[in-house]
Amino acid sequence: MEIIESVQNKQVKEWKKLLTRRGRSKQQKYLVEGDHLVEEAIKSESPIDAIIIRDDKADKFEAYSESFNTVLITTEIAELLSDTVTNQGLFAVINIIEETEKIEGRKPVLLLDEVQDPGNLGTLIRTADAAGFEGVVIGKGSVDLHNPKALRSAQGSHFHLPVIHDDLTKWIDFFEKRRIAVFGTALDSRAISYRDLTPPETFALIVGNEGSGVNPAFLKRTTENLYIPIKGEAESLNVAVAASVLMFSLYQ
Amino acid sequence: MEIIESVQNKQVKEWKKLLTRRGRSKQQKYLVEGDHLVEEAIKSESPIDAIIIRDDKADKFEAYSESFNTVLITTEIAELLSDTVTNQGLFAVINIIEETEKIEGRKPVLLLDEVQDPGNLGTLIRTADAAGFEGVVIGKGSVDLHNPKALRSAQGSHFHLPVIHDDLTKWIDFFEKRRIAVFGTALDSRAISYRDLTPPETFALIVGNEGSGVNPAFLKRTTENLYIPIKGEAESLNVAVAASVLMFSLYQ
Repeated sequence: MEIIESVQNKQVKEWKKLLTRRGRSKQQKYLVEGDHLVEEAIKSESPIDAIIIRDDKADKFEAYSESFNTVLITTEIAELLSDTVTNQGLFAVINIIEETEKIEGRKPVLLLDEVQDPGNLGTLIRTADAAGFEGVVIGKGSVDLHNPKALRSAQGSHFHLPVIHDDLTKWIDFFEKRRIAVFGTALDSRAISYRDLTPPETFALIVGNEGSGVNPAFLKRTTENLYIPIKGEAESLNVAVAASVLMFSLYQ
Repeated sequence: MEIIESVQNKQVKEWKKLLTRRGRSKQQKYLVEGDHLVEEAIKSESPIDAIIIRDDKADKFEAYSESFNTVLITTEIAELLSDTVTNQGLFAVINIIEETEKIEGRKPVLLLDEVQDPGNLGTLIRTADAAGFEGVVIGKGSVDLHNPKALRSAQGSHFHLPVIHDDLTKWIDFFEKRRIAVFGTALDSRAISYRDLTPPETFALIVGNEGSGVNPAFLKRTTENLYIPIKGEAESLNVAVAASVLMFSLYQ
């Protein structure tokens, strides 16, 4: 059993960097935290680089070390690596591998344009999973899936369906070429109520930034832009709420 | 122009207590922060106790002081009263008055059972507003509406429709007596898919705690319990997402 005790340890410093987007991008790895997410990572056969266990949970070491590179750490290091107030003492470092080819448009696909809030991003992925969508494409300018708070909100759904980071223009081209409908979401007069649409069997749905919505350049290229009729005095809906209403209504 | 400069000022200490549930309950007041919420409070003729302005925004003083008790504070005090990292230098202290009698069941009503996350609570209220619901009843054991983060997520919707804190049992009695349907949300076999329901013109909808759902004692008293069919591998939906799908589907 290897146990790392120093917060100055080189490996610890590398792991700590995975809490930042820059560190994840450089190492092409990300960190998940907690029993649920680690178990989901294993169950989905994710490319696990290391399992990290806090020393007071050393009884779990053997089970993990049979299949994975497993390391013990101190409470102090666990706190350093954790994004939560009280951590469960279990982490996994996972290699980032994006399975672009798994998104084919056979089932609906969710496209996210500049979603800023990690809680929203995670909830969108969790809901796309629950709604039976094929995958999620996170466009440029969005918070990334591997942000600790986004992963927490996604509750492991990114292990269930492909979630990739890519240029949305490329994906609109992709769906156009295959004659798959692309629906934007908008509030202006070019949009129609989602209730007036007879949805095709499969489609792509674009939802946008919390403040400014979907990029107008994308809205010009869609098959149709949809809006959700608002009855009360609320000015808008939360993006995760709006997307959820559309996903469950358009794909049954 | 009165200007408060000391963080030790008695009034400042009382305001500061409004950031806690206990302080709000004792004083029967709450604090809103930011231009948008203060303007909504005024627009909706809420019982404003004081408008508080940071001294670098003193040019706004005159406009507010014509109609309201208006006080200037220092940057240091503004930071003390703020729940955000960067505050806009504008606050309102509002008296808590709950308009129970405005909820009559003429339009659908949302009942919240032990919702714990303030962001969820606020989003639920914002979405109930957008969906055209009549009001929201927050049951015992829930986070309260006047929690700073809940208010932020609600984005002023609590100024648009009555939101009250009350015993849900009382409200189930209320709807029963008026023969208004009460729908629970559940995952077990006693529930039916919301898509198989022909919703009545008005109803009450109960959604529950993030972890444990709606109290079984309430589910026994409902007209029908509903579930949202989940297609993917997600175990559940976020409570605000689930409620949104139901609200927009059941009330069109």
